[in-house]
Amino acid sequence: MNEKKPLILVTNDDSIYSKGIKELVEVAKTLGEVVVVAPDSHQSGKAHSITIFEPLRLYKKNIFEGIEAYECSGTPVDCVKIAKKVALKGRKIDLVLSGINHGSNSSISVIYSGTMSAAIEGAIEGLPSIGFSLCDYDHDADFSHIRSYIKTIINQALLTPFASNIALNVNFPSIISGPIKGIKICRQAIDKWDEDYDKRTDTNGKDYYWTSGVLLNNDLETDTDEWALKNNYISIVPCQFDLTSKNEKSFLENNWKIVS
Amino acid sequence: MNEKKPLILVTNDDSIYSKGIKELVEVAKTLGEVVVVAPDSHQSGKAHSITIFEPLRLYKKNIFEGIEAYECSGTPVDCVKIAKKVALKGRKIDLVLSGINHGSNSSISVIYSGTMSAAIEGAIEGLPSIGFSLCDYDHDADFSHIRSYIKTIINQALLTPFASNIALNVNFPSIISGPIKGIKICRQAIDKWDEDYDKRTDTNGKDYYWTSGVLLNNDLETDTDEWALKNNYISIVPCQFDLTSKNEKSFLENNWKIVS
Repeated sequence: MNEKKPLILVTNDDSIYSKGIKELVEVAKTLGEVVVVAPDSHQSGKAHSITIFEPLRLYKKNIFEGIEAYECSGTPVDCVKIAKKVALKGRKIDLVLSGINHGSNSSISVIYSGTMSAAIEGAIEGLPSIGFSLCDYDHDADFSHIRSYIKTIINQALLTPFASNIALNVNFPSIISGPIKGIKICRQAIDKWDEDYDKRTDTNGKDYYWTSGVLLNNDLETDTDEWALKNNYISIVPCQFDLTSKNEKSFLENNWKIVS
Repeated sequence: MNEKKPLILVTNDDSIYSKGIKELVEVAKTLGEVVVVAPDSHQSGKAHSITIFEPLRLYKKNIFEGIEAYECSGTPVDCVKIAKKVALKGRKIDLVLSGINHGSNSSISVIYSGTMSAAIEGAIEGLPSIGFSLCDYDHDADFSHIRSYIKTIINQALLTPFASNIALNVNFPSIISGPIKGIKICRQAIDKWDEDYDKRTDTNGKDYYWTSGVLLNNDLETDTDEWALKNNYISIVPCQFDLTSKNEKSFLENNWKIVS
């Protein structure tokens, strides 16, 4: 056994001041040396965006007792990048943890999620990375029923590592859904969000729109993350960042006359 | 032959005022009915982010002669969503075109790209979608050498449709690279960006960082988009939005003891 404790980078998208990251730090610090680099403001829906046209701020904060922590003015992906180069000065990170997100990131939501994009950025860096999300959007969500599961999953990841170019998308049922039945390895459900735009007029007489949306769960097979969560299982989807569709690559090679 | 002209939605991430989108509209309008919904400001690096906590603005603009066009205050993905529901009022879109981006979106850049995320959002909506990018970051980049290729690619897509859940990532060599040799169907190169953070101090004595980066092209196989572009071919990568890694799913199912 290696005596050295693993170096665990913790980030999220709900900001360093959210309840979910505090819960994750509490579990992670029992398993390794934790350093937190997380956004200084809400970054939900920021996906894999990075800050290009503005400078970044990075300030050390005493938020978590005994834990080195920094707040960053950028996106979740900025946090992972600046953590590696500036906060951790190139030290070898053993595990990237993102979350716990207040709200589901299952199905197609993985694409819009800052939480999961931070984890995927870890995978791009070749670091084992896990994003955790609870199916409860409440700022004061109850995380008590999933603490032991988070520890179990991180321990399993340290014991039986998954590929270093993969990020795990872990979603937990809300406590109000009743007892958790277990953990399922799943595929991403192929769903989409359906948006509605509520048109209003501001005090200057100009129109504006508030967006709302519902997830249309049309993929009803039993091997998806949506199915697992609806049936009170924890869902784990291994996510890759190579977007190439091999099937479609063959189709184009064989059927498009314009290619060399 | 269907007499009805295809309805083509055009968007981008460099803003509706960029040269690249004007070039794309000029080609697209020869092939169908074009409606433009594009950001009112630069949205480079915004990836798949969506606007959640702020309202959206959508204003009709007479920018392109004879073309219905709207500028939107949101991200490229917001543009596709609000185009469908508000600007086009649910009319059936036949093709989503995004770009032409001023700068490469090959290799891992596809993940950070607002241009490609708009195209991928089209694919999520089940619409044939293509993102176009030129390997030239200049605001006044020369697009003259690629006009005929863009028309050829769109025509091929209309003649021999690819799967409706796929977005094509098309990148063009810069004009300074010399004559284009042809079109290659490629896979995404497995590379990453290496960032540098330039630390400065503002007039209030507070530190801030400017980010810069270089693409580390470590994937040197000859079937990648990076290889094609370096060898003066146009690269086309078919991109999917299902991030599930089938290999890793099997690994976890077979090796993780904690799963049900």
